Amino acid sequence: MKRVEATAVTHLAQTTVVVATAGRGLVNLTPQAADFVRDSRLNTGLLTAFVRHTSCSLLIAENADPDVHRDLEAWMASQVQDGHAMFRHRAEGPDDMSAHIRSVLTATSLSIPVINGGLGLGTWQSLYLWEHRYQGHRREVCFTVMGA
Amino acid sequence: MKRVEATAVTHLAQTTVVVATAGRGLVNLTPQAADFVRDSRLNTGLLTAFVRHTSCSLLIAENADPDVHRDLEAWMASQVQDGHAMFRHRAEGPDDMSAHIRSVLTATSLSIPVINGGLGLGTWQSLYLWEHRYQGHRREVCFTVMGA
Amino acid sequence: MKRVEATAVTHLAQTTVVVATAGRGLVNLTPQAADFVRDSRLNTGLLTAFVRHTSCSLLIAENADPDVHRDLEAWMASQVQDGHAMFRHRAEGPDDMSAHIRSVLTATSLSIPVINGGLGLGTWQSLYLWEHRYQGHRREVCFTVMGA
Repeated sequence: MKRVEATAVTHLAQTTVVVATAGRGLVNLTPQAADFVRDSRLNTGLLTAFVRHTSCSLLIAENADPDVHRDLEAWMASQVQDGHAMFRHRAEGPDDMSAHIRSVLTATSLSIPVINGGLGLGTWQSLYLWEHRYQGHRREVCFTVMGA
Repeated sequence: MKRVEATAVTHLAQTTVVVATAGRGLVNLTPQAADFVRDSRLNTGLLTAFVRHTSCSLLIAENADPDVHRDLEAWMASQVQDGHAMFRHRAEGPDDMSAHIRSVLTATSLSIPVINGGLGLGTWQSLYLWEHRYQGHRREVCFTVMGA
Repeated sequence: MKRVEATAVTHLAQTTVVVATAGRGLVNLTPQAADFVRDSRLNTGLLTAFVRHTSCSLLIAENADPDVHRDLEAWMASQVQDGHAMFRHRAEGPDDMSAHIRSVLTATSLSIPVINGGLGLGTWQSLYLWEHRYQGHRREVCFTVMGA
């Protein structure tokens, strides 16, 4: 157990990026997150991502096999059925209420440690935005980093 | 991509609020969270909410159409059935184990950026406590904010 | 509503612990987290745990009745079926894709307030790592704490 300590939290940075999605599916946010952390020039700390919407969400998922993303989508679609008869909120179509439920089941905020000046993700981890609507949208993701 | 930076994290505040619930359903925590952030007088940073229970939870959900809350509840009740025969933990009734599962599927902690001195929620987002028990309870939510 | 404030965030510490799991099931991380917080000697702040894998995850669950853990496992196994015909990603066996889905439905990162120098968990809460693979693994969990 290696331990890093500092006697003051000397770095804080925050930015909001706009992500254009192409309809339902995962968008890799790892490059933007890693660039932001590197530009913030802290060595040790915590990055927190927050998505400012209720019909898309954040997750950390396996980044090697595209079938994982396909299977995540297949499972979610089987459990949260678009346009299910139980849903009353359908103003924007069959993907409206299901998008809200998918968002609640995944993450609106996620924190990743900053280790040795970079994102402390595991080898197989990437940070994704999951667009839950059929159509593409412009999505705002706020990154906040604190550390030393 | 607008970027805000500070060379020291100068503000830290923490409080625990008690929320009286009226049985299963959502309770809006946004006013308490926003007041706490405003009183903490930081401009940029991060608020983290934490609920000190395993039978209620936190979520960020759509705040405009009450049908969204009704549909969230309907979907959750259909997937995590109260008093299901597979559950052995039923000491406090049919809503006991289902409440624990609902809590695990949603959030125990949630972080929201502080932007320009206020909560950085999107237009349609509010922070809620989801009471999963049939009866009302007194629930403790701890808010911690750090920033500059 | 008791309120604690500080005019500087003076403490930051980070460590990565390795947890040996014995196959699918919960492993209590509360002792390691509590020790790390105590050794960091801050009074008020926030601990964030992050798991560096996509086939195990974090959760806060009831710590008193072992049936709760059994029922959580039973429910999850019923909803995310190992080796389901819809899954294409099965390179490492029937628990491969289901492990990724279970991870997405629970937490990769979790934050717990530090109150009066200790972990601010509720009476019935403990922090767990949930191993989703059949076989035991060595899992890395990164703890970051900031406060004053």
